Amino acid sequence: MKTKKSSGKIFVRLNRGEEVIAKMKELRKKYDIKNGFFHGIGAVDKLKLGNYNVENQNYREKEFKGAFEVSNFTGNIGPDKIHAHITVGDESYDTKTGHCSMARTSGTLEIIVHISDKPILQHKYDKETGLNIFDF
Amino acid sequence: MKTKKSSGKIFVRLNRGEEVIAKMKELRKKYDIKNGFFHGIGAVDKLKLGNYNVENQNYREKEFKGAFEVSNFTGNIGPDKIHAHITVGDESYDTKTGHCSMARTSGTLEIIVHISDKPILQHKYDKETGLNIFDF
Amino acid sequence: MKTKKSSGKIFVRLNRGEEVIAKMKELRKKYDIKNGFFHGIGAVDKLKLGNYNVENQNYREKEFKGAFEVSNFTGNIGPDKIHAHITVGDESYDTKTGHCSMARTSGTLEIIVHISDKPILQHKYDKETGLNIFDF
Repeated sequence: MKTKKSSGKIFVRLNRGEEVIAKMKELRKKYDIKNGFFHGIGAVDKLKLGNYNVENQNYREKEFKGAFEVSNFTGNIGPDKIHAHITVGDESYDTKTGHCSMARTSGTLEIIVHISDKPILQHKYDKETGLNIFDF
Repeated sequence: MKTKKSSGKIFVRLNRGEEVIAKMKELRKKYDIKNGFFHGIGAVDKLKLGNYNVENQNYREKEFKGAFEVSNFTGNIGPDKIHAHITVGDESYDTKTGHCSMARTSGTLEIIVHISDKPILQHKYDKETGLNIFDF
Repeated sequence: MKTKKSSGKIFVRLNRGEEVIAKMKELRKKYDIKNGFFHGIGAVDKLKLGNYNVENQNYREKEFKGAFEVSNFTGNIGPDKIHAHITVGDESYDTKTGHCSMARTSGTLEIIVHISDKPILQHKYDKETGLNIFDF
């Protein structure tokens, strides 16, 4: 991972083999991020996609391997949670998408993180949905 | 809906049951938004997807229900129009996408809106395409 | 193409028939962009999607025609490279995604470009992946 910071933004390049959620945690620590919203594109060869059925409060997850273009790695960084969704396309340009708990960089990942001092994106448990949501 | 504003950005949390386009209209009114570009992730359980065939100037729309992760809620806010597209993944991680005229939050929706004073995103009717486009 | 600039952001409207990568090059020249990250939505009727298999260093590309909503046109602009991925939905709301080397606007494309002075998004060849990656 290589990073550069410039007036409210952090620019990130991930290298082949690097796992993106682990790297986002490293990034949070390095820059002490309290509020970050990110977007990125690139390529991955392994990832886990998740889907949460709010009605049943049932989470499922599946691992995929292949040559995937990442058209959309989007999410946010709080001090206590990193929340990311990802959209990938395979060699037939067919698309999979879901919650992203793991994705391994194959080519590169190019990410911009818009950072703010406030509000701090702290989370609280919400019983109705079973999710940790922004504590606004 | 809970919102926080901080130097050129508005942070939004939508709650279970809230309809996102209606809430974006509320947000526009609350902060008097003249130019906003937004991105968000979350989950919805009901939505309408649209597709406009520009050649025929024919718009079609379909309602979907299910446990959908939202990997991409993207669009912009002008004083006279809110334009949003959405990408969702179902419990098999298969993806649907299109114009978004309605989407009901199931878990949470976490949205960042980048706001600007100018240019005002006013729209004008464009006869060639049948669309209301940015009046630049 | 119509464009407006305002404090670190460029707002872009593409018109029917305009090819988006060519226009991003024009935009780069007009504003001398050294670092730009963009996002957009709109509609296209012709596009090329690419997929790069990093393992084999093999790139494939395919042309698609139809009435596509663009839910996600995302990427970045450096002085020596424009890197874009795109997600589109057809008249059945089914989704295709991949690297974008060409896309022709059918209705409109509405793009925001976040620009920075630094770091300059210069690229260098990376032998391991066969890609031109950010020279951080």
